[in-house]
Amino acid sequence: MTAEQPDRGTRMATEIAEQPTLLGELVAARSDIATVAAEIAANPPRFVLLAARGSSDHAALYAKYLIEILLGIPAGLVSPSATTLYGAQPDLRDVLLISISQSGGSPDLLEVTHSARRHGARTVALTNTPGSPLHDAAELAIDIRAGRENAVAATKTYTNTLLALYLFIDALRGGDAERVRDIGTLAERTLTESTEAVGRAAREYRFVNRVVTSARGYSYASAAETALKLAETSYLSARAYSGADLLHGPVAAVDEDTAVLALTSQGAGGDAMREVLDTVSGRGADVLAIGSAAADMPVGGLIPVPACAEEVAPILEILPAQRLTLELALARGGDPDQPRGLHKVTKTL
Amino acid sequence: MTAEQPDRGTRMATEIAEQPTLLGELVAARSDIATVAAEIAANPPRFVLLAARGSSDHAALYAKYLIEILLGIPAGLVSPSATTLYGAQPDLRDVLLISISQSGGSPDLLEVTHSARRHGARTVALTNTPGSPLHDAAELAIDIRAGRENAVAATKTYTNTLLALYLFIDALRGGDAERVRDIGTLAERTLTESTEAVGRAAREYRFVNRVVTSARGYSYASAAETALKLAETSYLSARAYSGADLLHGPVAAVDEDTAVLALTSQGAGGDAMREVLDTVSGRGADVLAIGSAAADMPVGGLIPVPACAEEVAPILEILPAQRLTLELALARGGDPDQPRGLHKVTKTL
Repeated sequence: MTAEQPDRGTRMATEIAEQPTLLGELVAARSDIATVAAEIAANPPRFVLLAARGSSDHAALYAKYLIEILLGIPAGLVSPSATTLYGAQPDLRDVLLISISQSGGSPDLLEVTHSARRHGARTVALTNTPGSPLHDAAELAIDIRAGRENAVAATKTYTNTLLALYLFIDALRGGDAERVRDIGTLAERTLTESTEAVGRAAREYRFVNRVVTSARGYSYASAAETALKLAETSYLSARAYSGADLLHGPVAAVDEDTAVLALTSQGAGGDAMREVLDTVSGRGADVLAIGSAAADMPVGGLIPVPACAEEVAPILEILPAQRLTLELALARGGDPDQPRGLHKVTKTL
Repeated sequence: MTAEQPDRGTRMATEIAEQPTLLGELVAARSDIATVAAEIAANPPRFVLLAARGSSDHAALYAKYLIEILLGIPAGLVSPSATTLYGAQPDLRDVLLISISQSGGSPDLLEVTHSARRHGARTVALTNTPGSPLHDAAELAIDIRAGRENAVAATKTYTNTLLALYLFIDALRGGDAERVRDIGTLAERTLTESTEAVGRAAREYRFVNRVVTSARGYSYASAAETALKLAETSYLSARAYSGADLLHGPVAAVDEDTAVLALTSQGAGGDAMREVLDTVSGRGADVLAIGSAAADMPVGGLIPVPACAEEVAPILEILPAQRLTLELALARGGDPDQPRGLHKVTKTL
């Protein structure tokens, strides 16, 4: 461990703190995204596929809900190996493929994107790297404008990807970004107002070994992303379940030794978590709720988040979760800027 | 704990042992499934959605690969909450919805199926319960013929669901079930030939706390199902990663205290696991491989499975994994027939 190094986690901390500004700047630059949306809307798809890995896959999950609920178009997540390992040749006419990769350098997403174009799909790439292979491979591309990411653990590229996807999908339905106009300010408030509660939670969970994260609906993406961050930076055995799936079986593994982190924002998804949290609390689990509906939940600890439209809550609620991950890694003597065994671009085919 | 009760796990053990016979019987009755397939093939879908929860969701994942690779039709997994919590109204013309539930009683899948029919989808339900609400709600229905399942942990309903999906998709492409003709015999051999290795592994992993399961391609469904079974019956913190996603980040959490269970069958998916297992072995993890390619992997322990076509390997390789789960639960003093907190039908909406 590297507990002696005074600058542990400073890159991750810096990038977490940049997010309010970057989110605000992306909203201001939304006309670029609206231009791409207009190209697609001129000939709207009947199905949407999303291809991504890691944190970007959680952003894809968020987009899947937006596409189905706001656009009324069925959507699915791509399993790249169907193409890269088995050479699947699906008929993709009337399909829009959205490929998401901050580096724009994942060989498997590149192959999926090339293959999709050959099979009739329209393709849009979301990357943080204009000029990257993926950015160039797709018919249309969106720059998520998060600036160079130096930390190994993705934070600002994750939230700017969420916002870019929201702006794209909102523009596809003819929206004017009304619900994210003040997202930068709300993000700033989220970080400021959660500081004390995050510090308390990091101290409390320092010795935890077993974490389950859970949410329903839009926020499920945040639960999945929080579990990944905990595994990557604190080496915790953390796993995300949708609230419904948790009750379906894995609740058997939730006991007094389990910390449950629940993402609960105001709206239908947060409301549906009440039953889940009643159940896991009844089994003796320690429950911490993060979100704008956290104070209403039957839980011990809570990390507040300002109220916002439920469909954009994932952009805010992940902020204190990222910071909790950072502080927990530091409290456990690790360095989230140098997690063991992690590289920034995956080469898997 | 209930270590004194002499009949712990007998229901699960009985149903695991029934699988070779049930699989053989389902192949023999495949004309019922072919009839449903003919109805769909008369007017083929352009997109397939799969709706399921728990173990059935892993069967859906297997089907997604089959549909994309064997039929060349894009497919996606449904997030039921988009419909049940947010009232999504997607345009589902040219879509086939496959709903999978052994009980046929999950209210959320019922709502998803009703809603899909209203929005233009063709619907097929796979259940183990003819006459169940889901069986009746869908336009067409397939009986997976696993007989009454008394154990709480799904085993025989899982494998018969996999086989029913394979038979349905194979019939859709005009196949004659050639690759599963002897699946019952192969399943019998799988159980017999793996007995000793399973017993050894159960003893070795008795005190493990942290398990990661992994696979690529078709076998990823088996990795997900194994992790769920371990969580449900042994209360282990078990989590499945596709091999590609594991290397992308969570490998940081894999160390000397982690047992990695890898599903590695002969074919492209198994081959692609070699790099993954090299990496986790290099990090000091204890690796156990299950599958027909296990002997070729850079691992410590292996549980053999007879060779078969890769596309049907998930039906065989899960058998020793189920039995390992059972024996591990017993070795740890639990009763897999009475896991704490588990019910057979989930009521979540």
